[in-house]
Amino acid sequence: MLNKIVLTGAAGKLGGVLRKPLAEMCRELVTTDIADSVADLSPNETYAQADLSSLDQVMRVMDGADMVVHFGAIGDEAPWDDILQSNIVGAYTVWEAAYRHKVRRVVYASSIHAVGMHPKTDFIDTTARHRPDTYYGLAKCFAEDLASLYWDKRGVESVCMRIYSCEEKPNNARALGTWLSHGDLIRMVTAAIETPTTGFTVVWGVSDNDRVPVDNSRASFLGYRPQDNAETHAPRILAQAAPMDPQNPEDMCHGGPFAVVPLGESGVAMIKARSVGS
Amino acid sequence: MLNKIVLTGAAGKLGGVLRKPLAEMCRELVTTDIADSVADLSPNETYAQADLSSLDQVMRVMDGADMVVHFGAIGDEAPWDDILQSNIVGAYTVWEAAYRHKVRRVVYASSIHAVGMHPKTDFIDTTARHRPDTYYGLAKCFAEDLASLYWDKRGVESVCMRIYSCEEKPNNARALGTWLSHGDLIRMVTAAIETPTTGFTVVWGVSDNDRVPVDNSRASFLGYRPQDNAETHAPRILAQAAPMDPQNPEDMCHGGPFAVVPLGESGVAMIKARSVGS
Amino acid sequence: MLNKIVLTGAAGKLGGVLRKPLAEMCRELVTTDIADSVADLSPNETYAQADLSSLDQVMRVMDGADMVVHFGAIGDEAPWDDILQSNIVGAYTVWEAAYRHKVRRVVYASSIHAVGMHPKTDFIDTTARHRPDTYYGLAKCFAEDLASLYWDKRGVESVCMRIYSCEEKPNNARALGTWLSHGDLIRMVTAAIETPTTGFTVVWGVSDNDRVPVDNSRASFLGYRPQDNAETHAPRILAQAAPMDPQNPEDMCHGGPFAVVPLGESGVAMIKARSVGS
Amino acid sequence: MLNKIVLTGAAGKLGGVLRKPLAEMCRELVTTDIADSVADLSPNETYAQADLSSLDQVMRVMDGADMVVHFGAIGDEAPWDDILQSNIVGAYTVWEAAYRHKVRRVVYASSIHAVGMHPKTDFIDTTARHRPDTYYGLAKCFAEDLASLYWDKRGVESVCMRIYSCEEKPNNARALGTWLSHGDLIRMVTAAIETPTTGFTVVWGVSDNDRVPVDNSRASFLGYRPQDNAETHAPRILAQAAPMDPQNPEDMCHGGPFAVVPLGESGVAMIKARSVGS
Amino acid sequence: MLNKIVLTGAAGKLGGVLRKPLAEMCRELVTTDIADSVADLSPNETYAQADLSSLDQVMRVMDGADMVVHFGAIGDEAPWDDILQSNIVGAYTVWEAAYRHKVRRVVYASSIHAVGMHPKTDFIDTTARHRPDTYYGLAKCFAEDLASLYWDKRGVESVCMRIYSCEEKPNNARALGTWLSHGDLIRMVTAAIETPTTGFTVVWGVSDNDRVPVDNSRASFLGYRPQDNAETHAPRILAQAAPMDPQNPEDMCHGGPFAVVPLGESGVAMIKARSVGS
Amino acid sequence: MLNKIVLTGAAGKLGGVLRKPLAEMCRELVTTDIADSVADLSPNETYAQADLSSLDQVMRVMDGADMVVHFGAIGDEAPWDDILQSNIVGAYTVWEAAYRHKVRRVVYASSIHAVGMHPKTDFIDTTARHRPDTYYGLAKCFAEDLASLYWDKRGVESVCMRIYSCEEKPNNARALGTWLSHGDLIRMVTAAIETPTTGFTVVWGVSDNDRVPVDNSRASFLGYRPQDNAETHAPRILAQAAPMDPQNPEDMCHGGPFAVVPLGESGVAMIKARSVGS
Repeated sequence: MLNKIVLTGAAGKLGGVLRKPLAEMCRELVTTDIADSVADLSPNETYAQADLSSLDQVMRVMDGADMVVHFGAIGDEAPWDDILQSNIVGAYTVWEAAYRHKVRRVVYASSIHAVGMHPKTDFIDTTARHRPDTYYGLAKCFAEDLASLYWDKRGVESVCMRIYSCEEKPNNARALGTWLSHGDLIRMVTAAIETPTTGFTVVWGVSDNDRVPVDNSRASFLGYRPQDNAETHAPRILAQAAPMDPQNPEDMCHGGPFAVVPLGESGVAMIKARSVGS
Repeated sequence: MLNKIVLTGAAGKLGGVLRKPLAEMCRELVTTDIADSVADLSPNETYAQADLSSLDQVMRVMDGADMVVHFGAIGDEAPWDDILQSNIVGAYTVWEAAYRHKVRRVVYASSIHAVGMHPKTDFIDTTARHRPDTYYGLAKCFAEDLASLYWDKRGVESVCMRIYSCEEKPNNARALGTWLSHGDLIRMVTAAIETPTTGFTVVWGVSDNDRVPVDNSRASFLGYRPQDNAETHAPRILAQAAPMDPQNPEDMCHGGPFAVVPLGESGVAMIKARSVGS
Repeated sequence: MLNKIVLTGAAGKLGGVLRKPLAEMCRELVTTDIADSVADLSPNETYAQADLSSLDQVMRVMDGADMVVHFGAIGDEAPWDDILQSNIVGAYTVWEAAYRHKVRRVVYASSIHAVGMHPKTDFIDTTARHRPDTYYGLAKCFAEDLASLYWDKRGVESVCMRIYSCEEKPNNARALGTWLSHGDLIRMVTAAIETPTTGFTVVWGVSDNDRVPVDNSRASFLGYRPQDNAETHAPRILAQAAPMDPQNPEDMCHGGPFAVVPLGESGVAMIKARSVGS
Repeated sequence: MLNKIVLTGAAGKLGGVLRKPLAEMCRELVTTDIADSVADLSPNETYAQADLSSLDQVMRVMDGADMVVHFGAIGDEAPWDDILQSNIVGAYTVWEAAYRHKVRRVVYASSIHAVGMHPKTDFIDTTARHRPDTYYGLAKCFAEDLASLYWDKRGVESVCMRIYSCEEKPNNARALGTWLSHGDLIRMVTAAIETPTTGFTVVWGVSDNDRVPVDNSRASFLGYRPQDNAETHAPRILAQAAPMDPQNPEDMCHGGPFAVVPLGESGVAMIKARSVGS
Repeated sequence: MLNKIVLTGAAGKLGGVLRKPLAEMCRELVTTDIADSVADLSPNETYAQADLSSLDQVMRVMDGADMVVHFGAIGDEAPWDDILQSNIVGAYTVWEAAYRHKVRRVVYASSIHAVGMHPKTDFIDTTARHRPDTYYGLAKCFAEDLASLYWDKRGVESVCMRIYSCEEKPNNARALGTWLSHGDLIRMVTAAIETPTTGFTVVWGVSDNDRVPVDNSRASFLGYRPQDNAETHAPRILAQAAPMDPQNPEDMCHGGPFAVVPLGESGVAMIKARSVGS
Repeated sequence: MLNKIVLTGAAGKLGGVLRKPLAEMCRELVTTDIADSVADLSPNETYAQADLSSLDQVMRVMDGADMVVHFGAIGDEAPWDDILQSNIVGAYTVWEAAYRHKVRRVVYASSIHAVGMHPKTDFIDTTARHRPDTYYGLAKCFAEDLASLYWDKRGVESVCMRIYSCEEKPNNARALGTWLSHGDLIRMVTAAIETPTTGFTVVWGVSDNDRVPVDNSRASFLGYRPQDNAETHAPRILAQAAPMDPQNPEDMCHGGPFAVVPLGESGVAMIKARSVGS
């Protein structure tokens, strides 16, 4: 059992999913976010407000940690200056603080949008070159390269989880391939923490969907084996989904709506617009 | 639900397997073949006799279709002139009519024999180069390249299903690896129709056999997940099968008997001669 | 020295370039085309009119040949029915006659248009999948697959030379990368004939241009080493060339203008329209 | 059913696991080892003492065999002279005797240690280059190359099973990825024997572990489908395992402790030292 | 001839090499840097001081440009905050201004240090994954990914030239493989500007050295053909060079001294310390 | 300049070519072979008779050496027992003595016959799997794997030069592709010695022939750049060469006559029988 884990982005949607399972994996869980507080603390959980773009503040929460689970960042396409501060500088501070505090490993919420412009008919694996679809994706590329640097030069391990579509349930036709269930998210983070050594590793964050469009085999040593499958939602979704357009990057690229959203504007809003009711 | 699907080769063995499931996927199913008629029409099924080597006749049946499921062709090695008319000209007419009628997609019964001369110890994926074993296989290569052309130049989508050994049950040692069950055939055709966008895609038509000799991962986004496994038939078959010869292309190539049958002569007859009783 | 070589397409532009060099490589050169006659026969050259779509006529000219250099076909995009007869049936007759007469090898004028829809920023080698840009290119794909079949099943060797832009000199910006000089054409055909064994081989027909966009290394055992370089023509051409459009397949695909010409219409005319004066 | 199978290394740990299942696959099982005798012979089993470094002795036991299952060798790192006699000369005698007696196939206990110096974060398949970690692994490389030679030049088939960690149950953190259960060992040997033709094939000997670090797809035509999963032992093992060191080849290479054991000294002893109690 | 080219980093060492050749390729050359002025302006050259981290200032110099040649950045490893402002924000402003002003293409001085941690015995091509060796290299990774994004989403072309060791002459043993002569630098920039279309392209900036350690073939369509060879300097250098250490990343990685320099400290100083006198 | 180089196989044909050039690269050259003496010693050359299968004798000659150039072995296919002693045990003693004496690097005469069964139409690079054609080739595979082991575990560097056909001039049709001139042999050995660090490296030993059938790019960092070309001998050789047979492994495999010579019998004799007079 680990002594101390730090979770950034604890007030976010996915952070909220992870707080309880992480609390069970360590003696002390420190959760942090820009928000004032989070509700329902576990007994061994402490919440510490921090701005990730401040190295000082990050240094404070990371003291004595064995691992950091880094989910704190703007979770959508946004104007460049916002991404720069939160997602680029905010990544630097996390890895730098991890290095200074001798944290063993960063488990990082990267994203499919680091490679979102690859066509969906290319069954890419984790060695496909970076091909971001937004500033948001570009910042994920940056953090992955930073993770590679800190491993090669400073021995800090990282697992970069390229999360696809993490929702309670899939709500559009694209998500039949790209869905990551909450259960599988927890399984993946658990594997990323428990695997004895990882060096610098990239893994696709996707469930065991019939229509899974990426090859996860290179990360198989992590032992992440997803158990959910979006296909059980196919009848509901396909009955309501609008037809797709084979000439449209939105429908043909891994990044989905992010492949066409104008830089700096919300892609999440566009995804929501494509979602079917439930 | 699609408005209209056209099935060519409806009087053939595999066409017969597909008629009912296709009827359930659309408002109107038009089945066609060179035969005078087919039995047991579904309520929403119309049969229209047509010679696929005639563009006029193909144009008539394709009018208003959303998709065409193209299984109509000589299903065995045959003299060049026959293959030329039925399988080469017959492919041209189908894609050309599809284009003229703005049909969205051709779901095509390609074949392992498009690549049958590759050695079985090569675990090929769908990017392995064409390497036909017969005129029959050569015509499949032609149709796949035609499909690629109509996608790149004219936006007609195609799913080329390289069907291996589609039988009610496997009946020879080779089929323990190459069998495609009727259930999995239906699953594959269904996926090829329902996947929202496909562009030009190739997929291996094979069940989830223990001994499956090809890599289907590049087409995983289609969501075809086979459920049958020839291995349940292994004891019956292996007890009766003649020994194989590691120096014989018939036993070492993906094409099996087609790898040695003289050009223009029946390979199906040779396969039958290798089959064990049941 | 070979006993007898047959050259098809002898009245064509490239055929005319090859007649003299081929005459020097054998005791008897038989040249053939659909035209009535060709001028300036070499002393050991015989001209025999033949329609390549007739197996009988092809059989007559091929009798006793050691090798056939097959350049006879429509050399431009054309309506399907024309391509079918001249380029598809015409390929079948050549390989079939070669087989029946125990001809050792077919040296074949394939074309870049067999793979013309690949993007130019992909540095493809000879294993890239077929991706034709026209019916013309589709027929080249067919002939290559036929050549593969006749080697694997019948032991007839083939060298498929994917000729790019064979002109006396390059006359447009694309040709700075794709030019094949007449001298290099002769060198390539000579290598294809003289290499002791070739099996089934594909080689790019392109000069040693600074901007060469394809990888010819897999055919290096043939010993084809080009000596000309289109770059000497760059100043003249670039001074006159219209700007290119990075969003236009014509400018971004290996096939050039063929990547956008409507199926069945002349691509050569479009290339001419892009040419600069000299 | 085969007439006669020979099992070498019958007195060893894995040989003992295989004797009964092999006896059921043939009319006559001849088991052999350097020991005087083995206990509990099956009714159709004969034991014949033999020194594998003597071609004469190997010739005697191999007479009339259909297949040989070759597990006889020093099963640990050892001084060079010992490995030379038992594992290198001992491999030569087995393949040479197999050739002279027209034995169809050698099913060989190769080892992960033939490629043990590859980093674990490289998800290698069976085409990764040899990269031995010990003299023991070097001898496995030798035997695989010998097997390749005897197939290419003499038509003797071989299946080289690169066994990872074959134990009754996994007992250290590394084995959560590398375990091969006894049941899966039997399944793999059975597949290697029953597959009608194999030529020269390499397969990873590993169970269906969540953390499996290698890609077995190239040998899928053999039909080996493992059924056990070390993950059921994860809680017990991880609770007791010492932390790993990402800078230590022992923890980062496929070979595990063999990646750091001095040449000539026991790696098995080092593995045992890492094992947790049960 | 282009109308207007902008050169950033004009006061730097490489910028100085490029000013004259660029002036000859366009009607108007605007050079810019953080310095007050540069000497020896060409007749058609205007110098405009600008801070690249200010979008406003960059917008001003880029107005009306056809292409921008972007060499302006800190040219050495430096503290994070400096790299962030000059090399990361400074890259954003260049591509953003290029987009707003409809500049056709950015010709960018990337660096080997974007992939400097790959071992030198790996003959990498331009698809090898990012593997930076310093913050400096990390910023190059960022700019390349930004370039990819602006091409895919906004149609701005980029040629990312991964410059190795650009010096007047090579001065250490490593540079015998990695040297880029000034003449070849000019040839490469010229090719990157003159190639009619490039999309997003990466090219190695290295001369035609005997010991060249990278594969440049994927960018061959650019027509960059180097003419200089560091080998002429080998006797002088090897006579003075200190022996290398095969266990030292400095001597075994593509990045050379940058592979071992502490993050934030000068790698150029370390390179100089390794240089031999001339 | 190196202090001491040891050359094994000094009395052999290639050893004789290397003695003078090696003497110029070091202060002291020790040459060794099984013969009593060699003629024409250089002033700084000492000859020491030694049997390579004796570790003691090898230890004696290697004392104090910086590098060993290992060419001592049976240079032809031979009976197993002979190959075992001279080429397998003889390789072990060289690397073991090198390790014990802290020799920096072994420059090794490996051979094309380590991979001779690959078809010539496969343009293999140095990562192609071992596929020996003889016991002779099998021993080369062994030594390469041994070299890999001594680098990974003990830090002894190795350059394995897979020499093709090293003759004064090419004398048969195969050698037009496979010739290594004496000048290029010396260039390659020089590069292998002078390259500052090599780790474990494999390089093809072949001249710059027009018909070169292998890809040497992965070893380009060594700086070996051949200057001779067998093509100048083509007219003489092709005029006399017997026709080749595309169905014959001798003519289709990289190993040439070794691909068909019976194991244990002389392949060199067969090559000579194929040679044309001069």
